[in-house]
Amino acid sequence: MDLLPHLDPASPTPLYQQLCASFERQIAAGELTTGERLPATRELAGLLGLNRTTISAAYELLEQKGLIAGHVGRGSFVAGRPAPEALDWSSLLNRPARQFAVNLVVNPAAISFAASRPPEELFPVEDFQRSCEEVLSSGHLDSILQLGSPGGYEPLRNYLLQQARGERVLGPDDDLLITSGCQQALDLLRRVLVRPGARVAVEDPVYPGLKNILLEGAAQLVNYRSGRAQIAVLTPNFQNPTGLTMPLAEREAVLQDARENATVLIENDIYSALRYTGQPLPSFKELAPRAGTTLIRSFSKIAFPGLRLGWVIGPRPLITALRETKQLSDLHSDQFSQAVMLRFAESGRLAAHQANMVDAGRQRLDAALDAAARFLPAGSQWTRPEGGLNFWVTLPEGLDAAQLLERSQREGVSYLPGEVFRVERPQHNSLRISFGGARPAQITRGIEILGRVFSAASEVQKQAEREPVTAWV
Amino acid sequence: MDLLPHLDPASPTPLYQQLCASFERQIAAGELTTGERLPATRELAGLLGLNRTTISAAYELLEQKGLIAGHVGRGSFVAGRPAPEALDWSSLLNRPARQFAVNLVVNPAAISFAASRPPEELFPVEDFQRSCEEVLSSGHLDSILQLGSPGGYEPLRNYLLQQARGERVLGPDDDLLITSGCQQALDLLRRVLVRPGARVAVEDPVYPGLKNILLEGAAQLVNYRSGRAQIAVLTPNFQNPTGLTMPLAEREAVLQDARENATVLIENDIYSALRYTGQPLPSFKELAPRAGTTLIRSFSKIAFPGLRLGWVIGPRPLITALRETKQLSDLHSDQFSQAVMLRFAESGRLAAHQANMVDAGRQRLDAALDAAARFLPAGSQWTRPEGGLNFWVTLPEGLDAAQLLERSQREGVSYLPGEVFRVERPQHNSLRISFGGARPAQITRGIEILGRVFSAASEVQKQAEREPVTAWV
Repeated sequence: MDLLPHLDPASPTPLYQQLCASFERQIAAGELTTGERLPATRELAGLLGLNRTTISAAYELLEQKGLIAGHVGRGSFVAGRPAPEALDWSSLLNRPARQFAVNLVVNPAAISFAASRPPEELFPVEDFQRSCEEVLSSGHLDSILQLGSPGGYEPLRNYLLQQARGERVLGPDDDLLITSGCQQALDLLRRVLVRPGARVAVEDPVYPGLKNILLEGAAQLVNYRSGRAQIAVLTPNFQNPTGLTMPLAEREAVLQDARENATVLIENDIYSALRYTGQPLPSFKELAPRAGTTLIRSFSKIAFPGLRLGWVIGPRPLITALRETKQLSDLHSDQFSQAVMLRFAESGRLAAHQANMVDAGRQRLDAALDAAARFLPAGSQWTRPEGGLNFWVTLPEGLDAAQLLERSQREGVSYLPGEVFRVERPQHNSLRISFGGARPAQITRGIEILGRVFSAASEVQKQAEREPVTAWV
Repeated sequence: MDLLPHLDPASPTPLYQQLCASFERQIAAGELTTGERLPATRELAGLLGLNRTTISAAYELLEQKGLIAGHVGRGSFVAGRPAPEALDWSSLLNRPARQFAVNLVVNPAAISFAASRPPEELFPVEDFQRSCEEVLSSGHLDSILQLGSPGGYEPLRNYLLQQARGERVLGPDDDLLITSGCQQALDLLRRVLVRPGARVAVEDPVYPGLKNILLEGAAQLVNYRSGRAQIAVLTPNFQNPTGLTMPLAEREAVLQDARENATVLIENDIYSALRYTGQPLPSFKELAPRAGTTLIRSFSKIAFPGLRLGWVIGPRPLITALRETKQLSDLHSDQFSQAVMLRFAESGRLAAHQANMVDAGRQRLDAALDAAARFLPAGSQWTRPEGGLNFWVTLPEGLDAAQLLERSQREGVSYLPGEVFRVERPQHNSLRISFGGARPAQITRGIEILGRVFSAASEVQKQAEREPVTAWV
């Protein structure tokens, strides 16, 4: 024993317990090893200037714990190590940034406006089956089921490259990577581009799946309208959650800003295939194919999100880095689904399905906007999207959409409150209505119910404002 | 213009060019804005103590670049901003740690020992088709193709939980997460557990897909035999690359060490279903179901790696954090493949296929070890695995497996040189032979060729050692 224990006579913990704890630490740390002899009680008492009974009490405690054993006439020896603490997971884990907690009740009978997803009852199941069977009988099944390339299933990659060329969204220095949905594209982009503290410009409110990824990377999120950033991730078409479309002049200004500030500009373009009205606007990539912008697309909002297939088009050095990180992250995306999706697309079934989805989406959006006008309380505002699966409602000042969710769910309707999407600006009285997954009649009924809940709360609030404040203290 | 340009008369760059560059910077930075008037040449010459022709030359250059315009009698005005630099991707990108570069020639006629994968010619394609068709006609297709849960397709998750219970690898406080293969399990574990600088214990040599993930997380890799670590990731069964099995006593010692040092112990157990000889040994989880160890398993080494399906079993708080990070990373794994794999497993087809794979693997391993004994040069050593898809060859001192790869590939055989797997110890004269993907006759022929290449190099080297050194200078 090289070092004497440091004891604190002023501590409320008795000295014999302090001494025991000190030995315990040394044994746990391996500074005292099994078989090693402890000083005799008399000797240690002298060294520490303590009463010998204090030392004896400490040794007894250590013996009770099975850490030392006393041998008559020979002294006390270290007998074993203390049982380890169970792993303290709360301190071991890097948890993703705390999300705004929403307590969504899963009730199949309810009307859900909570998820931005296409309606599964419109999935062309027979066309999917046919595409599947064509892949099963293609004669390529063994290589499809074998390990593949991190860049994606080459025939699908070639198909998407050709499509991109036709749509003028493949710049001369661009390449393409297939990802497990748009979410993985965003995640990989964060991993290769975002350094801690980097300023990343986004819309406010923004898709929480993007916000949380960026917070995991310790980025500093700023509204894209409020100044320079190293990276910008924007959704100019039917943004989630607002449903808004960025006008052409603003697209050009964003592009010009990006050019001047050497901002890496990323367009998250997963909704553009779902335009119900108005003219398509050019993507950043079409406006400036040589400017090094990046475009993310996905099949998930028009067909089969359960397959998790998206892709990224961007400058070759970026795509190379993304592919390397994709390989680290999961080697590659599921090849069977890539092969089936290729058949679904090149057979023309995807285009037919997309036309159905646009028709259905238009009806649903119309139903949603009609119902909003009829049922939301006076003083409410909402966006009027030209496409996509979501619109954004701002209730009269003072109402709290998160609080009202509980009541709404009891009445059978769910949605996501605005705070989930918040970046800088508070969004207490806002909410997202995802109308894509509900039938028109359900949408009307659901918004009617929400209107009733919100109007009642609005009345209560007005009442409260009119009543004089009674102060009891 | 608030600040005068700082010019350096001692610089080799002429003063008019320095002046031009200074204005260019101010215009690019927006300190001089479009329409702003520049000082008259005479005035600026006076202020800077320069000849007026120097100022005129600078202004001419700026005019040539389109940055200013001169109006007779009114002076020179800023006309526009300089064209931005193209994005400098090399400085923008966080590239994953540099891997040891291997130039593998893709030659379908060649014998490849380079990839640790199951043989695709043994894939039970008809059984896969049948499983697929059962899912297609199950009546659940629309919900399978819809967005799913980050934890995994619930019926598959329940099946795997039940299996784990039966195999006594589900501790009382454990949960299970489905991942896109073992690679994603390792990646997610890194994201939730590894902080920069953390000591992570691994085998040396080690699977590069693990090494590179850990290096991306700025972990400090150490050999698990060389002391304490916060996290240990080990493959006790048929380790990649060595093929070795950790003896029971060593497993117990590792577990004891982990307990004493509060090390998070992770068992990467993707090969254990491929045991060809000897008795199965208990996993860390079976040895200590309550110790908080984590177990990674995968379908990829026995069936259909192209589907990317693995899973993690571990303490509930860890699985919760992994699930949250999985959701950020790709929302969830492909549900159609999960549903097909579930049918493939619960129908008994997986077990039948596994039996075939074990038979085939045993024949291949035997062929590989026989050929090694017959053809590798004297002084070579190699491991004798009891299962898995790989074994490890150490050539006589002085031979360089990376250098010899080029020659071997010209002769039609590829492998991965040892340096790819290196942690601390140099592995110049080692290589991994992945025998799983080649037929027994190919294995014999491939190792015969390697033996010839290596023996020739060994002879040349011995010759060189015998010859006296001739020094020319």
